[in-house]
Amino acid sequence: MKFLILNGPNLNLLGRREPEHYGTLTLKGIENLITAEAETLGVSVSFAQSNMEGELVTLIQQAAGVYDGIVLNAAAYTHTSIALRDAIKAVGLPVAEVHLSNVYAREEFRHHSVIAPVCVGTVSGFGAGSYLLALRGLIGRVS
Amino acid sequence: MKFLILNGPNLNLLGRREPEHYGTLTLKGIENLITAEAETLGVSVSFAQSNMEGELVTLIQQAAGVYDGIVLNAAAYTHTSIALRDAIKAVGLPVAEVHLSNVYAREEFRHHSVIAPVCVGTVSGFGAGSYLLALRGLIGRVS
Amino acid sequence: MKFLILNGPNLNLLGRREPEHYGTLTLKGIENLITAEAETLGVSVSFAQSNMEGELVTLIQQAAGVYDGIVLNAAAYTHTSIALRDAIKAVGLPVAEVHLSNVYAREEFRHHSVIAPVCVGTVSGFGAGSYLLALRGLIGRVS
Amino acid sequence: MKFLILNGPNLNLLGRREPEHYGTLTLKGIENLITAEAETLGVSVSFAQSNMEGELVTLIQQAAGVYDGIVLNAAAYTHTSIALRDAIKAVGLPVAEVHLSNVYAREEFRHHSVIAPVCVGTVSGFGAGSYLLALRGLIGRVS
Amino acid sequence: MKFLILNGPNLNLLGRREPEHYGTLTLKGIENLITAEAETLGVSVSFAQSNMEGELVTLIQQAAGVYDGIVLNAAAYTHTSIALRDAIKAVGLPVAEVHLSNVYAREEFRHHSVIAPVCVGTVSGFGAGSYLLALRGLIGRVS
Amino acid sequence: MKFLILNGPNLNLLGRREPEHYGTLTLKGIENLITAEAETLGVSVSFAQSNMEGELVTLIQQAAGVYDGIVLNAAAYTHTSIALRDAIKAVGLPVAEVHLSNVYAREEFRHHSVIAPVCVGTVSGFGAGSYLLALRGLIGRVS
Amino acid sequence: MKFLILNGPNLNLLGRREPEHYGTLTLKGIENLITAEAETLGVSVSFAQSNMEGELVTLIQQAAGVYDGIVLNAAAYTHTSIALRDAIKAVGLPVAEVHLSNVYAREEFRHHSVIAPVCVGTVSGFGAGSYLLALRGLIGRVS
Amino acid sequence: MKFLILNGPNLNLLGRREPEHYGTLTLKGIENLITAEAETLGVSVSFAQSNMEGELVTLIQQAAGVYDGIVLNAAAYTHTSIALRDAIKAVGLPVAEVHLSNVYAREEFRHHSVIAPVCVGTVSGFGAGSYLLALRGLIGRVS
Amino acid sequence: MKFLILNGPNLNLLGRREPEHYGTLTLKGIENLITAEAETLGVSVSFAQSNMEGELVTLIQQAAGVYDGIVLNAAAYTHTSIALRDAIKAVGLPVAEVHLSNVYAREEFRHHSVIAPVCVGTVSGFGAGSYLLALRGLIGRVS
Amino acid sequence: MKFLILNGPNLNLLGRREPEHYGTLTLKGIENLITAEAETLGVSVSFAQSNMEGELVTLIQQAAGVYDGIVLNAAAYTHTSIALRDAIKAVGLPVAEVHLSNVYAREEFRHHSVIAPVCVGTVSGFGAGSYLLALRGLIGRVS
Amino acid sequence: MKFLILNGPNLNLLGRREPEHYGTLTLKGIENLITAEAETLGVSVSFAQSNMEGELVTLIQQAAGVYDGIVLNAAAYTHTSIALRDAIKAVGLPVAEVHLSNVYAREEFRHHSVIAPVCVGTVSGFGAGSYLLALRGLIGRVS
Amino acid sequence: MKFLILNGPNLNLLGRREPEHYGTLTLKGIENLITAEAETLGVSVSFAQSNMEGELVTLIQQAAGVYDGIVLNAAAYTHTSIALRDAIKAVGLPVAEVHLSNVYAREEFRHHSVIAPVCVGTVSGFGAGSYLLALRGLIGRVS
Repeated sequence: MKFLILNGPNLNLLGRREPEHYGTLTLKGIENLITAEAETLGVSVSFAQSNMEGELVTLIQQAAGVYDGIVLNAAAYTHTSIALRDAIKAVGLPVAEVHLSNVYAREEFRHHSVIAPVCVGTVSGFGAGSYLLALRGLIGRVS
Repeated sequence: MKFLILNGPNLNLLGRREPEHYGTLTLKGIENLITAEAETLGVSVSFAQSNMEGELVTLIQQAAGVYDGIVLNAAAYTHTSIALRDAIKAVGLPVAEVHLSNVYAREEFRHHSVIAPVCVGTVSGFGAGSYLLALRGLIGRVS
Repeated sequence: MKFLILNGPNLNLLGRREPEHYGTLTLKGIENLITAEAETLGVSVSFAQSNMEGELVTLIQQAAGVYDGIVLNAAAYTHTSIALRDAIKAVGLPVAEVHLSNVYAREEFRHHSVIAPVCVGTVSGFGAGSYLLALRGLIGRVS
Repeated sequence: MKFLILNGPNLNLLGRREPEHYGTLTLKGIENLITAEAETLGVSVSFAQSNMEGELVTLIQQAAGVYDGIVLNAAAYTHTSIALRDAIKAVGLPVAEVHLSNVYAREEFRHHSVIAPVCVGTVSGFGAGSYLLALRGLIGRVS
Repeated sequence: MKFLILNGPNLNLLGRREPEHYGTLTLKGIENLITAEAETLGVSVSFAQSNMEGELVTLIQQAAGVYDGIVLNAAAYTHTSIALRDAIKAVGLPVAEVHLSNVYAREEFRHHSVIAPVCVGTVSGFGAGSYLLALRGLIGRVS
Repeated sequence: MKFLILNGPNLNLLGRREPEHYGTLTLKGIENLITAEAETLGVSVSFAQSNMEGELVTLIQQAAGVYDGIVLNAAAYTHTSIALRDAIKAVGLPVAEVHLSNVYAREEFRHHSVIAPVCVGTVSGFGAGSYLLALRGLIGRVS
Repeated sequence: MKFLILNGPNLNLLGRREPEHYGTLTLKGIENLITAEAETLGVSVSFAQSNMEGELVTLIQQAAGVYDGIVLNAAAYTHTSIALRDAIKAVGLPVAEVHLSNVYAREEFRHHSVIAPVCVGTVSGFGAGSYLLALRGLIGRVS
Repeated sequence: MKFLILNGPNLNLLGRREPEHYGTLTLKGIENLITAEAETLGVSVSFAQSNMEGELVTLIQQAAGVYDGIVLNAAAYTHTSIALRDAIKAVGLPVAEVHLSNVYAREEFRHHSVIAPVCVGTVSGFGAGSYLLALRGLIGRVS
Repeated sequence: MKFLILNGPNLNLLGRREPEHYGTLTLKGIENLITAEAETLGVSVSFAQSNMEGELVTLIQQAAGVYDGIVLNAAAYTHTSIALRDAIKAVGLPVAEVHLSNVYAREEFRHHSVIAPVCVGTVSGFGAGSYLLALRGLIGRVS
Repeated sequence: MKFLILNGPNLNLLGRREPEHYGTLTLKGIENLITAEAETLGVSVSFAQSNMEGELVTLIQQAAGVYDGIVLNAAAYTHTSIALRDAIKAVGLPVAEVHLSNVYAREEFRHHSVIAPVCVGTVSGFGAGSYLLALRGLIGRVS
Repeated sequence: MKFLILNGPNLNLLGRREPEHYGTLTLKGIENLITAEAETLGVSVSFAQSNMEGELVTLIQQAAGVYDGIVLNAAAYTHTSIALRDAIKAVGLPVAEVHLSNVYAREEFRHHSVIAPVCVGTVSGFGAGSYLLALRGLIGRVS
Repeated sequence: MKFLILNGPNLNLLGRREPEHYGTLTLKGIENLITAEAETLGVSVSFAQSNMEGELVTLIQQAAGVYDGIVLNAAAYTHTSIALRDAIKAVGLPVAEVHLSNVYAREEFRHHSVIAPVCVGTVSGFGAGSYLLALRGLIGRVS
């Protein structure tokens, strides 16, 4: 089984960006943790990140037929992107939505997710652990 | 480490209640899965369920000093109970909010959680797996 | 055929509470009227009342397999209780919602019912008669 | 005692229109059921139907001094017609609002009734039975 | 100069309908007062009333080229009728909106007028006097 | 194939009414254009117009079994008429909603259509051309 | 009979301020028209104007026992001043609300009046004529 | 004179729960202060606390005929409990609403009280003093 | 210790204004009660009243360095005055908000206080007693 | 005359994406239909598609001076993109908005179009036919 | 060229009032900075401050014919004063709105300006520098 | 000191796009004015423009460590882009928001800025001057 770990805008800054919300791990650091977890779980993972909504749409489209599921941290686009929602629905792959921070403890506009209704499930608030849990959950759903 | 797995109203009907949302596992069945997972993870777990908001408040209060954290599926009270929110904040234990179904794919009134802002994190949509992931995530937070 | 007549918070005060909305009959008086009507209609009825939301949830759960339907006056919980709604949906029994007063002629917050969408139908505004009509309607639906 | 059974727009199509909401009985079929029930109850009934809001207003106005009450299914106008509301209030006759389907289980715009606050009571969701129950309830109120 | 005094739904019941809001004068009584005032002011007036929104639309359309202005009490349709608004705008005649009662001292839904933005002005709260003032004001505008 | 071209309130004033929104063509002129287009397309068309909501409801009801579809410009009633919506749904004919002007470039209350969800499609903003395009689209849908 | 004609903020600029809404008459010019009308009607009038909300409150308080009624153009304070509303209610004098322009044809925030519910009636849109009509209407109410 | 001092959910945790809002006094400590104040004022007081909404409803019901008034800190239920509101209205005892903290300086959902409209008055923000002031105020009202 | 008792618009009319809400005591009468209570409590009090928002702002500003706290009944300005709120926050004195009537039992616009979030606490509904309780509460806070 | 047929996010997946809404034609298939229709109508057409909002903005900018109009299916960006709206307004070309499905019969967030107010007109719900009708309508507008 | 620098309520407290938002400069200190900048720019400036909305209205009215523009910090009245808005529009002078703090980073009610739509432009968040920039910007607009 | 002048979507069309809002200067013309002003102020400036939200995010990210601040006209993205907001907050550079036109005098959706709360300040309505003032203000903040 192969999974795509897809990250949205500003997550390339991790470790530098608002550490009180996102911790001090870099994106590379998180990817290393995921790779280790994937090995433990006997699956393979690939990584992609983009600041561009349309590029994320294209990456989801291209995942069809290649991956068994997507772990998606859409970051800021979580709250506004109908295009991402349409892409997820169109490709028909199971997608797990993740957030590093507990989005419900932050600004009100972060409490609503446009993509959640078309995802399999959501994990938020466990820091880098959110990715590991979502991957594990996704495998449970796909298996 | 000891954790309380606390379930709210109507979850005692699991397996019978709307299986398209909640699956066919009984609450006992889920508790068995959690016990097995807890053993794997080297922690101990206890279980409680109540249909009464005030009893859930009391159970959370009594967890202080006894458990290291709570995995809480507050079910219907998730969306309206300020009393649960206050209890969680008052006892200061880390709480992980879980939902069996993807609440964001259901009625609008299930999209809002009153307790999420005072929880550590949220896991929803992975069926019985939501509890296992939340337990694992909570351990990661407490450790 | 057996039916449960279930009453919510403060209805135990009937006859004393705001007679301009609820009349001067006591709850016992209404139950006597229902018993008489049930005999006429050739069905049996039981009665229960609770001020506690969670107890009402439990009573609805326990009605499954015992009764053929429920006549429910959820009173104040009508307008807020998702737990009651979930219980009704979970047990799969036909439920008729009743109100003594015409709730639409009172405060705005009494115009919305959380449980109506999962009930068979609603009768309001006919005083004690609302129960009798609802029982009759429920029998018509069950027969 | 004489009662007017007044039906609003599109109810002349009953039996043809969306049978999943309204059943397969025609309006004539329902009127026959009501006539039979009226005989049982020892009252007389008349019937009228119109697709026009203003004609329904006029029919309500003309009922004053002729009938002892009105069983009104205002259909689509239930949700928007202040003119019907004003007519009901002006003539001072007791009016029972009825709906064949459970309007609270349908589109959101069908959950609000403009006329309910000036009616005696409401019966909805019992199919043709809604009319019979409302007639019975109205007699109880008038007697 | 000729003016049309046009009355909407339920105003034919004046004198009978809710006298605490509308007084005890009949519509005929008010029309007599207006006729007398018109004579004093040296203008001629005609009267029309309808309970039907569409008929009121047609009456406004037919007023073009016949009258110099319209005094319009649209009653219940004041608050909802875009069709009346479009008719007023289409015919290009000056229209004065009148209300017998002070609509702002009543239910909230009577505070908003759909037709006011396309009228010359509004007079409300002076009982039958509202018509006389509006006629006088309209003459001042047309002269 | 036969189609009904049905026009709502104030469209009988076309050519006179607010030409900046609706152009200078009369309704008769538009009907001539539609007749010519219908001949080209090999279908037959009939025309009806009414200022009365209830009459439009009746005309839609009567179209069942006579026409293969309806091109409907409900004008002001577009934004408020649940009765028209119910009629369209009840008769089961394909209906194309048309508007002469671009309703989205006008007042906010014209942006919402109550009937659009039960129509096949919508054409707005192409003047008299809107009717021609809608007829053509409807034929494509029916064929 | 004596009446106070009370004007609020910026009305001292009349003739200079936005003539497309308010015309070219100065406040003095309007007061002259009112004085002439008052003579015709056989009543006496006094005038006051202030840009200060609190001063208007005081002027209304002081009118009690001196005047038989107030013609009030509260201008900008119409839409926000609870203090003016309380003053009107406290002194118990009949107050007629006037506006030079048709406030319903302007910005949305001018459509709502905080003081209208405690006034006798409202006249708007007739330019300086609004004052004359309101005075006449007030006399009719007081007589 | 006898008064019931009734406390709602989580107030049994006082001294432990969020001291920045509620101070370090325990509930027992506050009750001692109230007892002392009651002695000074020459009245007797009893105390009750519950985490359960329905139990609070029952306690209020049972207070009728026993106490002369209730000092009620409904805590979380203040903002949502129609059942408490109905109970207060039903028993007809004067109730003073109290809050330890200034609820208006906290989360928006704490700014609205469902029970305030049926209470005699409200005291908030004076810590334990809120109870003392409310008791004193209630005595003033009852005397 | 010295306290300023500051009253807002229309409170100078007390005893005359809407006695069903405010009682029959004059402002002078209330001030006498406060003076007596202040003597009992061993503090000194001064009084001020204004109908002008800006003057109240200035009085609060001038209280800094002179008084130990303010008992403020801002009346109508309670619900709208950001300027009063800013003044209270700027001077840093403890302010207790008072209302004679239970504002939550009146019009909806009286339920919201703009100044409450920057006050120490609120007392409402105890008539003249509200001032006495607030003064006592304020002393408790300042001591 | 030359026209640009511009498609937004996920339309490159047509034929694969949610066929119940969008049909089984591929984007290439639709483009072939448009080319054929354009030949019939004697105009030339070009095609472009992008998943990126900013690229669509740029394509619209570059259309100025090259094309006589644009047929635009902005898909998900229809509902949120002010940037597309600004681009359309800036280049001054006539733009026809199209949708394959009847957007008004789907999720509420698809009922609002940010770009409609600056387009010439809209065609929705006729499948691939929507493009053909819009092209024809645009030619009618440009000619 | 002459400019009026006009300050609203509580700005006379600058240096004392919430220094985390407004800094430690007094109003006099800011005025000195503005005078110096005015000399550099070759214009003359005058200063005025008032806590009273109506006085600010009058000051704006009196500025007509005397000044070439106004730099206005309306403080709390920014968010509610229609009277100030009307005054600005009435006098026709260019007005630049300024704020010391970044109002968009503070309470939600400070995000909306009633006067901004009738001002030339807005400068906020640059401390005392906001005035200097606004003056410079105004000169650029007037020249 | 070095500053980045960053422009968002459609600003590359300046001089061509809606000159009534944006003037006739091209973007190049504005950049020349800024360069001249920067020389006067002794700072250096660079320029960038993009129609793509994600590219603007990347440009802001890359500005960290290179520039001392950013003057940002995010144009259409101002009102919707959480991604830009997150980028600004993440890089920690002072950002001044600018708009050529007075956005508060235009469509309602342009009144709200998603990025303003994380900027230092805002300048709008001074045409090209807005950039010059913002640069000057930013230097004042950074120095």
